Amino acid sequence: MNEQMRAILYAEDDESLREELMEAMVAAGYNVLPAESGTTAITTLRSEGARIVGLVTDINIGSGPDGWEVARTARELNPDIPVVYVSAHSDEVWAANGVPNSVMIAKPFVATQVVVALSMALNAVPHVPQSSSEAN
Amino acid sequence: MNEQMRAILYAEDDESLREELMEAMVAAGYNVLPAESGTTAITTLRSEGARIVGLVTDINIGSGPDGWEVARTARELNPDIPVVYVSAHSDEVWAANGVPNSVMIAKPFVATQVVVALSMALNAVPHVPQSSSEAN
Amino acid sequence: MNEQMRAILYAEDDESLREELMEAMVAAGYNVLPAESGTTAITTLRSEGARIVGLVTDINIGSGPDGWEVARTARELNPDIPVVYVSAHSDEVWAANGVPNSVMIAKPFVATQVVVALSMALNAVPHVPQSSSEAN
Amino acid sequence: MNEQMRAILYAEDDESLREELMEAMVAAGYNVLPAESGTTAITTLRSEGARIVGLVTDINIGSGPDGWEVARTARELNPDIPVVYVSAHSDEVWAANGVPNSVMIAKPFVATQVVVALSMALNAVPHVPQSSSEAN
Amino acid sequence: MNEQMRAILYAEDDESLREELMEAMVAAGYNVLPAESGTTAITTLRSEGARIVGLVTDINIGSGPDGWEVARTARELNPDIPVVYVSAHSDEVWAANGVPNSVMIAKPFVATQVVVALSMALNAVPHVPQSSSEAN
Amino acid sequence: MNEQMRAILYAEDDESLREELMEAMVAAGYNVLPAESGTTAITTLRSEGARIVGLVTDINIGSGPDGWEVARTARELNPDIPVVYVSAHSDEVWAANGVPNSVMIAKPFVATQVVVALSMALNAVPHVPQSSSEAN
Repeated sequence: MNEQMRAILYAEDDESLREELMEAMVAAGYNVLPAESGTTAITTLRSEGARIVGLVTDINIGSGPDGWEVARTARELNPDIPVVYVSAHSDEVWAANGVPNSVMIAKPFVATQVVVALSMALNAVPHVPQSSSEAN
Repeated sequence: MNEQMRAILYAEDDESLREELMEAMVAAGYNVLPAESGTTAITTLRSEGARIVGLVTDINIGSGPDGWEVARTARELNPDIPVVYVSAHSDEVWAANGVPNSVMIAKPFVATQVVVALSMALNAVPHVPQSSSEAN
Repeated sequence: MNEQMRAILYAEDDESLREELMEAMVAAGYNVLPAESGTTAITTLRSEGARIVGLVTDINIGSGPDGWEVARTARELNPDIPVVYVSAHSDEVWAANGVPNSVMIAKPFVATQVVVALSMALNAVPHVPQSSSEAN
Repeated sequence: MNEQMRAILYAEDDESLREELMEAMVAAGYNVLPAESGTTAITTLRSEGARIVGLVTDINIGSGPDGWEVARTARELNPDIPVVYVSAHSDEVWAANGVPNSVMIAKPFVATQVVVALSMALNAVPHVPQSSSEAN
Repeated sequence: MNEQMRAILYAEDDESLREELMEAMVAAGYNVLPAESGTTAITTLRSEGARIVGLVTDINIGSGPDGWEVARTARELNPDIPVVYVSAHSDEVWAANGVPNSVMIAKPFVATQVVVALSMALNAVPHVPQSSSEAN
Repeated sequence: MNEQMRAILYAEDDESLREELMEAMVAAGYNVLPAESGTTAITTLRSEGARIVGLVTDINIGSGPDGWEVARTARELNPDIPVVYVSAHSDEVWAANGVPNSVMIAKPFVATQVVVALSMALNAVPHVPQSSSEAN
C-alpha cells in the first residue's frame, strides 16, 4: 500500500466514530477515503475504480443506499474486494443481508478489531486477472 | 433426521435436474421438499417454519423471486439455516448477491458435490437454544 | 485404510442406532470397532493403541465415563485423533465440554453427515511422528 | 467496546506477565479485568455476567481451578465467549483439555499475538439474540 | 459435471489402486481420466486444457515427473484447480513440497475420503474468467 | 517470544523495504533476523535451527535461491514453520509455487498486514514433539 493510489473506502455518517476509526486505520498504514453517506460511497466506488482495494462500512448511513447496498455494489465492481461491516445491527440481520466472505463487527467495538479484520481480509484476496471486469 | 418432520427445501424449476438431485439427497438419507418456483419456496419457508433445516436453491427459477431472494428470506426466518446455491451463474455474481456462509456450486456439477456441501453445512450449524436470552 | 488393522472406534449404547451407523461407515469403506459403553471404549483405546485412527462417540452411553471423557482420553493418547460427537445434547453443552477441532452432530441426523464429517477430519489429520507418544 | 461495561477477563498469576499483557490489551483499546487466580476468575465470571465478552487465561494459576476449568465455566455461562489460552503447556495437552473454537498461544509469545487472536475471535462471535427462541 | 467434457485427472501408477479409486469416483458421478505416469499426466494437462477441472495424484508414479511436479504444472495452467494428493508420504513432506490449498490423504485410506475431499474442493473453486490464461 | 533466542527470519534484498518491515515487526515485539539474499537465508536456517520460529520472505531476492526455495527448505527443516510471502508476484504464481498453509501478501502492502499474518500463523502452529526432526 506504498502506492499512493490504493485506498480503503470507509462509509460512516457518524462524524466522531468516523474520525476515530480513520485515525486507527491511518496509524496502521492504510490510505483511507471517507464517505459520509451511501450515495457518496457508491459514487466513489464508481469513480475511483480499482484504486479502492477494501471497504469498511456502517449499515445505517443516513438517507440513500445503506451499507448492505454499498457492499453489493462494491462486489459487482470487484468480486474479490474485502468487506467489513461495523454495525449496531445483530449478526442475524447480517446473515440475511451481508455478502459472502465478509466480516461483521458489532458495536461497541475497539478500532483494533477493524484493523485486524481488514488486514486479514486483504491478505486473503485472491488474484483478479486484468480482464475480469470484461468477463462480467 | 430420523424425525419425519425435518426437511431440506430444494427450489429448482428444471424438472429433470430436480428429480436427479432429489434422488441423490434422498439416497443420502435426507427428507426433501421440492419447490418448482421461488414463490412456492417462500410460501413453504413461511408455512413449514422450523421444520426446514436446510436450503438448496437454483438462482433462475422462473418468474417471481429468484434464488437470491429465497435465500435471504430463509435467513430472515432462520439466521443459521445452511444455504447451498446450484447455478449456472459465475462465482462473481454470487460474491455480490449471496448470503454469508453459503456455498455456491457451479453447473455442471455432480450430485455428490451437493450432498457433501449440505452435509458439511448441517454439521456446522450452531445451536440457538431456547434459553439463550436468559443466559445473556 | 486397506490395512486391516486401522479402525474407527464408535461408542454408542443404543443398539439400533449403533447398527445403523456402523452399516453406513462400513459401506463407506471404514473398519469400525463398536463399543457399547464408555468403559469399553476407553479399554479399547488403551489396548488397541495406534490402530484407532478416529473416534465417533455418543455422549450419554450408560453408566461409567460419558462421551466427553472418552474423547479426552482419546486425545491424551493421540493428540491428533479426529473426534466426531453424535448427540441429542445442544451445541452449547459441546462448547463447554468438547475438545478442540472436533465436530458435533446433533440428533436427529442422517448417517451421511457422520461419514462426511469423519472423512473430512481424517483428511486433515496432521502428521504424527513415530515418537510422539513418548513425548507425552 | 466504547461502552464502559464490556470487558475481557484475564486470568494470570504471574504478576509481571499480567501487567505486560494487560498493558498491551489496554493499548489496543480493550477494557481488561485481571484475576490472579482461577477462583477469582470464576467468581468474576459469575458476578459480572454478560459484561465479560472474552477470556484470556493462563493454565497453571496457583491452587484452585486451573485455566481449563475457568474456560469450561466461561462457556457454560456463555457458549459463544472467545477463549484464548496462553500457556507453557504443549498443544498436545490443549488438544485433550481445551474447549472447541479456542486458541492456544504457547509461551514464549509476544503480546501482539494475544491482541490479534482476541480481536479475530471477537469479530467471529456469533450473535445470540433476545428473540431467537421465537424465531425457531 | 453433466457436460461430457469436464473431467478429473487421476495420476496413479499402481493399477489395482487406480481401478479401485476410479470406480469410486465414477460411482460418485465424476468423469475421470486416468494417467499411469507423471509424463502422461502432464501431457494430458497440456492437451486437454480447461476440460480438466480437478487433479488427484499419487506422489511416486514411476520414472519421470512425480506428483509434486504434476500438481505444480496443473496450477501453472489453472491457478484455481483443486489438488488432492494420495500418498504414502508423510504430511511433513507435503508441507515442504505441496501447493497451497491442496489436500493430502495418507495411505492407507478409504475411497470415500478422496470423493469427499474432491467434492469439497470443487465446491470451493473460485470463478476463473475466460481470459485468465492470457493474463499469465 | 521473551526468550532471546527465538527469532523470525526475514529474507529481503531491498534495503529500504527490509528496514521498514523489520521496524514494524520489532515494534510488534518480534525478534527478527534479516537476510539480504536467499543464500544467506538458507545458511541461517541451517545454522540457527529451531531458533527460527517463522519465515517472512520476498520472492526475488537477488541471484541464488529465490523465496520459493527458501520456504521449501524451511519446511524441510521444520514442517510446521509459518511462512509469509511478500511479493510483487500474482497470487497465481503463488498457487503453483508456494507451500501449503502459507500466506501471500501482494505488494504494495502495509506493514500491519505482515504483522497480523505472522501473529495469526504463529498462534496456529501445531505442537512439534522434541523428536520430530529425527523422524525426518
